[in-house]
Amino acid sequence: MAGNTFGVLYCVTSFGESHGPAYGGVVDGCPPGLELSNTDLQRELDRRKPGSSRHVTQRRESDAVEILSGVFEGKTTGTAIGFLVRNEDARSKDYAAIAEKFRPGHADYTYWQKYGIRDARGGGRASARETVVRVAAGAIAKKWLKERYGVVIRGYLAALGKNEIPFQSWDDVDRNPFFMANAGLVKKMEAFMDELRESGDSVGARVNVVAEGVPVGWGEPVYGRLDADIAAAMMSINAVKGVEIGAGFAAIAQKGSEHGDEMTPQGFASNNNGGVLGGISTGQDVTVSIALKPTSSIRLPRRTIDRSGRATTVETTGRHDPCVGIRATPIAEAMLACMLMDHALRHRAQCGDVVPPLKLDNPRKIN
Amino acid sequence: MAGNTFGVLYCVTSFGESHGPAYGGVVDGCPPGLELSNTDLQRELDRRKPGSSRHVTQRRESDAVEILSGVFEGKTTGTAIGFLVRNEDARSKDYAAIAEKFRPGHADYTYWQKYGIRDARGGGRASARETVVRVAAGAIAKKWLKERYGVVIRGYLAALGKNEIPFQSWDDVDRNPFFMANAGLVKKMEAFMDELRESGDSVGARVNVVAEGVPVGWGEPVYGRLDADIAAAMMSINAVKGVEIGAGFAAIAQKGSEHGDEMTPQGFASNNNGGVLGGISTGQDVTVSIALKPTSSIRLPRRTIDRSGRATTVETTGRHDPCVGIRATPIAEAMLACMLMDHALRHRAQCGDVVPPLKLDNPRKIN
Amino acid sequence: MAGNTFGVLYCVTSFGESHGPAYGGVVDGCPPGLELSNTDLQRELDRRKPGSSRHVTQRRESDAVEILSGVFEGKTTGTAIGFLVRNEDARSKDYAAIAEKFRPGHADYTYWQKYGIRDARGGGRASARETVVRVAAGAIAKKWLKERYGVVIRGYLAALGKNEIPFQSWDDVDRNPFFMANAGLVKKMEAFMDELRESGDSVGARVNVVAEGVPVGWGEPVYGRLDADIAAAMMSINAVKGVEIGAGFAAIAQKGSEHGDEMTPQGFASNNNGGVLGGISTGQDVTVSIALKPTSSIRLPRRTIDRSGRATTVETTGRHDPCVGIRATPIAEAMLACMLMDHALRHRAQCGDVVPPLKLDNPRKIN
Amino acid sequence: MAGNTFGVLYCVTSFGESHGPAYGGVVDGCPPGLELSNTDLQRELDRRKPGSSRHVTQRRESDAVEILSGVFEGKTTGTAIGFLVRNEDARSKDYAAIAEKFRPGHADYTYWQKYGIRDARGGGRASARETVVRVAAGAIAKKWLKERYGVVIRGYLAALGKNEIPFQSWDDVDRNPFFMANAGLVKKMEAFMDELRESGDSVGARVNVVAEGVPVGWGEPVYGRLDADIAAAMMSINAVKGVEIGAGFAAIAQKGSEHGDEMTPQGFASNNNGGVLGGISTGQDVTVSIALKPTSSIRLPRRTIDRSGRATTVETTGRHDPCVGIRATPIAEAMLACMLMDHALRHRAQCGDVVPPLKLDNPRKIN
Repeated sequence: MAGNTFGVLYCVTSFGESHGPAYGGVVDGCPPGLELSNTDLQRELDRRKPGSSRHVTQRRESDAVEILSGVFEGKTTGTAIGFLVRNEDARSKDYAAIAEKFRPGHADYTYWQKYGIRDARGGGRASARETVVRVAAGAIAKKWLKERYGVVIRGYLAALGKNEIPFQSWDDVDRNPFFMANAGLVKKMEAFMDELRESGDSVGARVNVVAEGVPVGWGEPVYGRLDADIAAAMMSINAVKGVEIGAGFAAIAQKGSEHGDEMTPQGFASNNNGGVLGGISTGQDVTVSIALKPTSSIRLPRRTIDRSGRATTVETTGRHDPCVGIRATPIAEAMLACMLMDHALRHRAQCGDVVPPLKLDNPRKIN
Repeated sequence: MAGNTFGVLYCVTSFGESHGPAYGGVVDGCPPGLELSNTDLQRELDRRKPGSSRHVTQRRESDAVEILSGVFEGKTTGTAIGFLVRNEDARSKDYAAIAEKFRPGHADYTYWQKYGIRDARGGGRASARETVVRVAAGAIAKKWLKERYGVVIRGYLAALGKNEIPFQSWDDVDRNPFFMANAGLVKKMEAFMDELRESGDSVGARVNVVAEGVPVGWGEPVYGRLDADIAAAMMSINAVKGVEIGAGFAAIAQKGSEHGDEMTPQGFASNNNGGVLGGISTGQDVTVSIALKPTSSIRLPRRTIDRSGRATTVETTGRHDPCVGIRATPIAEAMLACMLMDHALRHRAQCGDVVPPLKLDNPRKIN
Repeated sequence: MAGNTFGVLYCVTSFGESHGPAYGGVVDGCPPGLELSNTDLQRELDRRKPGSSRHVTQRRESDAVEILSGVFEGKTTGTAIGFLVRNEDARSKDYAAIAEKFRPGHADYTYWQKYGIRDARGGGRASARETVVRVAAGAIAKKWLKERYGVVIRGYLAALGKNEIPFQSWDDVDRNPFFMANAGLVKKMEAFMDELRESGDSVGARVNVVAEGVPVGWGEPVYGRLDADIAAAMMSINAVKGVEIGAGFAAIAQKGSEHGDEMTPQGFASNNNGGVLGGISTGQDVTVSIALKPTSSIRLPRRTIDRSGRATTVETTGRHDPCVGIRATPIAEAMLACMLMDHALRHRAQCGDVVPPLKLDNPRKIN
Repeated sequence: MAGNTFGVLYCVTSFGESHGPAYGGVVDGCPPGLELSNTDLQRELDRRKPGSSRHVTQRRESDAVEILSGVFEGKTTGTAIGFLVRNEDARSKDYAAIAEKFRPGHADYTYWQKYGIRDARGGGRASARETVVRVAAGAIAKKWLKERYGVVIRGYLAALGKNEIPFQSWDDVDRNPFFMANAGLVKKMEAFMDELRESGDSVGARVNVVAEGVPVGWGEPVYGRLDADIAAAMMSINAVKGVEIGAGFAAIAQKGSEHGDEMTPQGFASNNNGGVLGGISTGQDVTVSIALKPTSSIRLPRRTIDRSGRATTVETTGRHDPCVGIRATPIAEAMLACMLMDHALRHRAQCGDVVPPLKLDNPRKIN
């Protein structure tokens, strides 16, 4: 294992490089009997796809996925699900110039020094294009969680650079190219992005993800906490620099009398803990917020060094997202789905005989 | 595995409950030949110990550690290092009253519902006292990292509730009961804590941790990223609700031209990335910041329910830290040390034959 | 992880050396609610205990076990179960002479070369005394498998050196010091062992283990096969050099028309496959047979080299079993129990919603 | 994880079914800088290929492999190596008749009962065709072990049914369709196989595998023993029912004075232990022997039941190997190679700083 697999029981293995022939993944541990087709994966992949608006990279990829195993007559068999997404629009010549230099903010330098060799075309293995595998694996997890437990996982763009984007409605999210839950701000953000793109610079973003319907009891003590595993899953997404569960960093300034979520027979009175206490789900919404750094590939010239260590400058003229956060919502949803499914399976392995002793009217209720 | 083990190659397994006979741990994977004695572990355990000032819990524990295996004639043998810390001051009667109720902000409810049984004495397995195991395991990792690679890992309290505590000097950290890197603010914080304690309430905190001297190349692509593993390790610490690497959430509002750390032949010009690019260490300082929620055990009465689901109130009168963040610094250091050591071993397993092609004058240099 | 942990979901971690202060273990993943006490572990440990007859080592150990965590008010809580067995009769002086030499058949040379350091007292970590941890962990697994699924795991000594010991009755097994299922041969074997002990030499043994009542469906395809995991578990026992499932090596000479177990509505017509097909349990008895090499510690002088590589001879005069296989039956049972429990949990994690479509009258039935 | 991945650091994940579109695998953890091309994998795959003589299945597959990632400009990059082998000659109609019945000796019944669904075409996931993935992964391991450590891994057919086939020369192995190391017996075995094929029955086989040049020190104590991991790897191969290391089951009848391999300054005087002591390699040849059961698919009618549990008979008329052991040699070599490479990496992770204190003239020497 060298970093390309995650999950204990819902286990995802990934391979592929930006300009190689294909990306692919293997999902091991999916329960048998789940109806599954290429379409289920494609639907989520299309949400992440490049080229879907002028605000994201113009690389043209159909991202067509092919399931190669683990499904028979339309249902999962319980064996490993292999799938493939061929790369189609890999213009390696775009990268010839920068193969000799380390782009600031990119993994060029660290891969070079770690491995003594690197595939510089489009970032190679470090490219965010690898997230096709996550989104495909997450699509399976989402489907199973929904059918088996009624869990619904949704996310939205909560900030675009300095612009906060307050949540208004889930209905808005899939109706704008930003995954904003606020239709009223779309025009403003389009103008902001147009200006940004013209400037040749990039910005960061915040994405929030919420899982509704998670039963009480998922997660393990001490190191196998649900929130710890979610933190790893989120921080493993390209460009993520911070992760919050529930109140997150706001908890620092809170008093205990404010933060600790009171309980009533009807349910919890608040959700500062983000649906996780002691590493175990409470039955409330699991709420996660992540910070994505600005795209490192920008057209503005930047100081750097070349492979001989000499000072030089670099500007990146390929096709890039001016804000990687814009396409991150489906990815963050996918990672949350995978982690929840992993813990659903882990929980029933150990506690399959436990009937939760208490039944709250509505654990999610926030008075 | 049900959550009580972490690490791939530097592997820590933990057991014990707050009011059981003992905590213990097993460190598997430590290289042979490291000089090691109880004293090495005790030094770090004493930094975390309860009762060391009036600002923390008054539970009296010597936290004396005994190494039971894996060390022969003062050196590690390469076999599993087992160690034990006996509990001494476990007053279980303090908890009789609350065994029937779920304390807000605690894991009482989630353990009860997950397992159908819980050891309510002092939080049982969910008690932060479990961190003795982490600190002991971290002491071994710190020592090895220092001797083998010159890595130094240090942390400090960066905020106490609403009070920001700017970094002034590492020298200050071990000279005050808060692990503040700012001697000038100690009096103010002591007064703040005295007032807080009297009020019966609690506050959150921010702890920053820094690893200096980490070589370029530790960490793995995609899911096994160094920062992803650090995020999990930090979020697994009791009360942690947020984790940042480098610029963290501030990266949202940054432009790419500001965030992406430029390089020069002398080294990096800034460290927004917190010493990690593409999941792999850059050779710069690894910088981590965590948010700890306010202590859930407070003297103020709070609404909750009992084991039959009936409404009631609870106030917690045991011995508790009014701010769990105060003792968190050695714990966060320990978790960072364990993760770095794990990745040091993972790196040399796969890339033991690679000589990093480039030698910067001073990778840490920030012009 | 460096070899001292096994199991995916029923996970056992072990530490300790022959002449250190204690052996200990951590069982992680045990379901909550199982009644468990020191007595449950002690019963099995006493079966493995040294000094119980003149035919085994005369080292005097009470092997008293103390559970340190994971049990509350007599029941498992679902958290890590830590336990400890103190060493009492460690006569390190016995080993001073041989610390400088490598005993043939022992791990002395390999530990020395691997780690550059070794605890030579009693074999250190390589001592078969480590099996106390396995037997304790196996006692928990046995109990859970019995109570939850009615699985019964039993073993017996099937050969002692060149002497085959045909199975007669399970009732005989605990009534003789050899775990023979054949009361009629006890006297003969006692005489054989007395003569062997006098000669200063040692012999190998065969132990058979059987699990009855294993439901159909445990085990995973391809690499996670039940029989593959059992093979690893058995081969990890000190001195084991061979493992067979079902017909084992006899399958080489069989025809397909003889080996392939026919099925009838009443059940299987034979059990050449040893209760496992395609890596998954059939519902028949799981049958395992292992070969244990002769004890390497013998009184006869043997050629070897010392730590400087010079030729010398060594004879071992400490207290040793003249046949390590004699005490191996409870150990093999324990390892089989741990593996089966691991797979029971793994199976219900993935296939917890599957109802086996077919119900045989009596899968074990062999017409 | 549900059984389709193995290895800790040299980690192989597999997917695919006999009559699905393709088999594929992911090798994670291969060191960077190894020269690697499709040809390296193809060479080994061709040795395992069906249809290469009249003595094996006549299914026509080119088994052409395509590396999809992890290799750049002819060298491994250290990232995940994905590869694909398309199925070409899948005649699913052959299997329509038996989809309703459970073939004796096959995994039909266990998959059906475990998952409640099964891909019956050609055995689905349980088909031995999955071993293409192992052989491809093993080809990479073999190459790295050879180049980095000079390790050579070779195997041969040691028994075909009741016919023992004594080792004569490695040179003979690739010159006959059976991988026999004995050219003199080829004619006799061809006649034997012709007769067998005509009879419609099948036989078992024994395959021996040897790794030469393994340095001292690979393997871990207690559960992570080299021999334990090899045992699991071998037992995970389709049809394997027994595994021996070194003297194997012959060790039962040996005396300690015979079995324990004496040492001299020139090397070991014998190799009963098969190159492993205490779970750690000795520097001698690692010798492994496995028993393969007779092919379960035979033309003779056998009693069985159908999916409703009713008595019926089944004969298998598809294209099958009359002895699966004939093509098992490259598979067993591959599994041994993967395990050795895994342990090579694990060893240098933990013990990378250890210089083995002693240098034998020739550890393999057997006087």
